Amino acid sequence: MYALIHQDTHSRARTGVIHTAHGDVATPAFVAVATRASVKAVEPDAIREIGVQMVISNSYHLHLRPGEDTIARLGGLHGFSGWNGPTMTDSGGFQVFSLGAGKEHGVGKVASIFPGEDRPRQPGNYKQGKSLVKLTEDGVWFRSVIDGSPRFFSPESVIELERNLGADIILVLDECTSPLHDYAYTKNAMERTHRWAARAVAAFARLHDEVWFPNPEQHLFGIVQGGAYEDLRTESARTIATMGFAGFAIGGSLGKSKSDMYHVLDWTIPILPADRPRHLLGIGEIEDIFAAVRRGVDTFDCAAPTRIARNGTVFVKEAPRHRINLRNARFRDDFRPIDPTCDCFTCRHHSRAYLRHLCRAGELSFYRLTTIHNLRFLTRLMAEIRDAIGADRFDALAAEWGVVTGYPDSTD
Amino acid sequence: MYALIHQDTHSRARTGVIHTAHGDVATPAFVAVATRASVKAVEPDAIREIGVQMVISNSYHLHLRPGEDTIARLGGLHGFSGWNGPTMTDSGGFQVFSLGAGKEHGVGKVASIFPGEDRPRQPGNYKQGKSLVKLTEDGVWFRSVIDGSPRFFSPESVIELERNLGADIILVLDECTSPLHDYAYTKNAMERTHRWAARAVAAFARLHDEVWFPNPEQHLFGIVQGGAYEDLRTESARTIATMGFAGFAIGGSLGKSKSDMYHVLDWTIPILPADRPRHLLGIGEIEDIFAAVRRGVDTFDCAAPTRIARNGTVFVKEAPRHRINLRNARFRDDFRPIDPTCDCFTCRHHSRAYLRHLCRAGELSFYRLTTIHNLRFLTRLMAEIRDAIGADRFDALAAEWGVVTGYPDSTD
Repeated sequence: MYALIHQDTHSRARTGVIHTAHGDVATPAFVAVATRASVKAVEPDAIREIGVQMVISNSYHLHLRPGEDTIARLGGLHGFSGWNGPTMTDSGGFQVFSLGAGKEHGVGKVASIFPGEDRPRQPGNYKQGKSLVKLTEDGVWFRSVIDGSPRFFSPESVIELERNLGADIILVLDECTSPLHDYAYTKNAMERTHRWAARAVAAFARLHDEVWFPNPEQHLFGIVQGGAYEDLRTESARTIATMGFAGFAIGGSLGKSKSDMYHVLDWTIPILPADRPRHLLGIGEIEDIFAAVRRGVDTFDCAAPTRIARNGTVFVKEAPRHRINLRNARFRDDFRPIDPTCDCFTCRHHSRAYLRHLCRAGELSFYRLTTIHNLRFLTRLMAEIRDAIGADRFDALAAEWGVVTGYPDSTD
Repeated sequence: MYALIHQDTHSRARTGVIHTAHGDVATPAFVAVATRASVKAVEPDAIREIGVQMVISNSYHLHLRPGEDTIARLGGLHGFSGWNGPTMTDSGGFQVFSLGAGKEHGVGKVASIFPGEDRPRQPGNYKQGKSLVKLTEDGVWFRSVIDGSPRFFSPESVIELERNLGADIILVLDECTSPLHDYAYTKNAMERTHRWAARAVAAFARLHDEVWFPNPEQHLFGIVQGGAYEDLRTESARTIATMGFAGFAIGGSLGKSKSDMYHVLDWTIPILPADRPRHLLGIGEIEDIFAAVRRGVDTFDCAAPTRIARNGTVFVKEAPRHRINLRNARFRDDFRPIDPTCDCFTCRHHSRAYLRHLCRAGELSFYRLTTIHNLRFLTRLMAEIRDAIGADRFDALAAEWGVVTGYPDSTD
């Protein structure tokens, strides 16, 4: 399903293409988050127009509402939502974390990177409190965030759920650990995730032949765990690499700093087969995108670019922050677009002054207009990155954007 | 500015065209409400694509935020919002009512017609409580709904405010009375509104020559008041008709029933000059549209079609209610569009099942998709009405839609 196009000579950055039944994805690519089969505030047709190549939805949330049976009856996620392009589904493994240890510890998976911004505002998520999750060898008990009712997910039931949803790329059920978990806990969780991965592979093979589902051409991705521990990440990458997955996601705790995250990538990516795609779960800051691509990541998703947009924070090509907040009083009479070089709908039609007014007046169109900008900004950035890799000038592009892709504490 | 095209032979219904510096409006037409220079949840470009011909913004709200100076500096409402089509501004007279007597009485201007739906959810509006308004002969003191600060509007200051906003059609400051006001109060208020109208005409003439404003080609409309009292409505129409206005709005209390509203129109419209347009403020139910057009109304605006859309209520061509609510469980697996005969973006792209899911999941794109449908539905209805009038079959069209345009208590 994956074809390598060009391998950078100076780093692990690479361009390639992921083939799916719903079209190709040129990589490296940003995958837009459509948790409930909808990118928040923007309808699927506009997502396509922006140039987003792939979206990722969440099996746990769609299971609760509207339910996989309804979605399957209406033609799977593609028929249901009208988004006809490549689609992934996350397994619910992140909810093992966010409704479990994340909730108990009151932290995100990369606690220090997006302070205040990496915290989904979903009911209960990340608010410190009692865990809504109970883990067993067999699977995981969740409480519904909607009505509190208990639901059981096993590696097998999640495959069936994802087959009903019909995404092109589906992820196995894993346990996403917290940066605050110790070595022993992280090791145990990783080993269970490996046993679950084997069961998911078996279930996927079984269901492939026996039952009709909306999308017969699905690809199953494994997930590498192991926290911020080198030996565990190495062991997990080796184990998951040999189980026959079509591609790989790097999940779980990415540590407590940018350095930790970069280490995790440097430990795992060289072990994963070069002929298959690598997805990094939950990363979307501009600096992190450059750093991850440089370490060989092909795709990543993150809710932050769309979430901060709804709060008035929009991307601009201005290092080091690459963002402005439209609520700021200095934009009151600013007739310029958000970014004069941007070709998105918002920048072609509206000034910062009008957008600031919409934001302050609480007008609903604001959320869509800023989300469109942030997604288009990332889409264009990824195209620039692909071009730069193809021309062997990736590091020059990073320098042009004023980002540091090496370890903050070294001269790498 | 107005040209009559065709006068129906069986009723006062007529087709015509309103010429403005920003384009023509084929009448009868529905004017979309863009209170704060934005139709709620839909950006101006989509409003144009829907076929909406004119929008109406609110001077009071725009004065409070972002302020007329900012809007004037950015090219008036057209330059500021990016909506380049015909635009009206209401004067703040409605706020004399909604923040004053409406608030004290806890009622809307047509208390019985849209139970629960004619009440804007703006801060403070219609919630019963202390009046935020103090009327004097000179003008009106408001308290800001944003910060409680006192603001004074006079007939002259409102003209200056509206000249700064730069709409194509601007309304004079009036006092919009409540259905619960008695005859004596309504008569006094009407007489003051007439004196204010004369002052507004003088101010408009004065400012026309003296100051630079974003839109030199504005047209001033007078407002007929008089509550649900025949002699007052007649007197008001006669007085306002002779003051040199480019067009007329029918404002204030339209009584306590559909019959009352129909009477108000039957009393006033025949007195107004046939060569100028007539606008009915705040009416937008499908049955009322037919009834008002039949009585000679050319344009009307109403927040209800967009407000009910955000609550999940969408128009369908099914008498007598002409609406369904997408929250209903019967739409869970309904793969049909809202209205199979509708050509709007929403009906071309999405099923009732998906829309219901977006609504229940609280997805922001829902508000835009249903608003687009309701506005497109009304836009197409108005085109049908214009065609029917032109073909002298307006009553046949009303019958086809299953609406009664006569007095509910008569055989008219």
